[in-house]
Amino acid sequence: MTDVPESHPRYQSLRIRDRIVGGVEAGVTSPHGLIAHGRGEAYDYLLGEATGPWAQQAIEATAAWLLSARHPVISVNGNVAALVPEDLVRLSQVTGAPLEVNIFHTSSDREGAIAQHLREHGAERVLLPDGVAVLEGIDSNRRFVHPEGILLADVIFVPLEDGDRCAALRRLARDVLTVDLNPLSRTARTATVTVVDNVVRVLPLLITEIERRRAEPAASWKQSMDNFVNDQALQQAEGRIRSGERA
Amino acid sequence: MTDVPESHPRYQSLRIRDRIVGGVEAGVTSPHGLIAHGRGEAYDYLLGEATGPWAQQAIEATAAWLLSARHPVISVNGNVAALVPEDLVRLSQVTGAPLEVNIFHTSSDREGAIAQHLREHGAERVLLPDGVAVLEGIDSNRRFVHPEGILLADVIFVPLEDGDRCAALRRLARDVLTVDLNPLSRTARTATVTVVDNVVRVLPLLITEIERRRAEPAASWKQSMDNFVNDQALQQAEGRIRSGERA
Repeated sequence: MTDVPESHPRYQSLRIRDRIVGGVEAGVTSPHGLIAHGRGEAYDYLLGEATGPWAQQAIEATAAWLLSARHPVISVNGNVAALVPEDLVRLSQVTGAPLEVNIFHTSSDREGAIAQHLREHGAERVLLPDGVAVLEGIDSNRRFVHPEGILLADVIFVPLEDGDRCAALRRLARDVLTVDLNPLSRTARTATVTVVDNVVRVLPLLITEIERRRAEPAASWKQSMDNFVNDQALQQAEGRIRSGERA
Repeated sequence: MTDVPESHPRYQSLRIRDRIVGGVEAGVTSPHGLIAHGRGEAYDYLLGEATGPWAQQAIEATAAWLLSARHPVISVNGNVAALVPEDLVRLSQVTGAPLEVNIFHTSSDREGAIAQHLREHGAERVLLPDGVAVLEGIDSNRRFVHPEGILLADVIFVPLEDGDRCAALRRLARDVLTVDLNPLSRTARTATVTVVDNVVRVLPLLITEIERRRAEPAASWKQSMDNFVNDQALQQAEGRIRSGERA
């Protein structure tokens, strides 16, 4: 796979795929994470493999939410860590939000591998669950959190979230900002802001947007947050899938 | 995952997913196969996770092609072996077509594991590439075949085929019958007959159809083969994805 020529029609997609398979080999990504990646590939293909207007709007809103947050946290799972480690570190730097490892399938080995992977890509500090702090209302391993991270967060950026946790975080009055290629998923429908786009394209755009708007007054961020309607963005994205137009 | 209750809205999908993850653990399925499975999940979801009329017609045509073939072969990769081993053995029995292991990513360990997996599910004979017999016009590992199997076949049933090989087999004047959840894929568009449906649902239906029509005169099979238009079936399936109706 690594010898796929740049001229191959699926080059970009195959290069990303190599990164996630490398994540499994490095103990960062779970086998179930590969299946989730495949689902994302299919939705991305149907969406035209480009950042649509619904995603642009959602990225603006996400930037505003992160800039306005009192205590934002970036929640990292094995897929995001394998796909965009440098971008995660950079996003943490520009927002001041800590990176916290939080994964669905219990594995302290994999949690450690993810933290190590992020450190190798420049992270100075990575929060891990301490085994004591627990978020109520979540059944899976994802209930275990760090006491100074997700436990205290008002706004959580969680690319590639699973539906149950997103709903539970919302019930706990957290605002959830997510990136999800399936506009019909429970996560997409439950989050405060859903960017329906490939996380590999989203993170650089989000970082640029935050840097651009950092100096604006808080009222301007507030306006972006108020103007964004998640259901409308999801409908636009679904419309693109259904219409069959290529972006 | 194995403790998912039957009441879970995604029970069936999760149960199938467990089988394919089990396939990786058993050395039968490749990590790239998991990603392909995820893509299939997404298309299946959009298709309504049911056998549509386009697939019913294609299953009838596939049965007719297999019944009419002079030397049919069933080509097995790691995903199909993990998902439907018993059905593959049964299909081989009702058609007399041998099972031949043929995988994209070179690994004689995995070829052996697939053959062993099929034998554990009742296969008496499984063909493997002998390292000498080669199909012209295929670059990947899939060019290596068994001299009495795919090399001599006039009709090849290859569920979950990759696009390059499908095109190469067609150039070699083989008829290719495939199962593919993506009606837009190169395989789907190149094959003689494409069943756009989940292989887990298709195989039992196909076996029943073959048993039902086995006693019919050859002219009746011929009629089914002539009446089937692959492009029309693909358009119907794509229409379902685009319309957003649930089956």
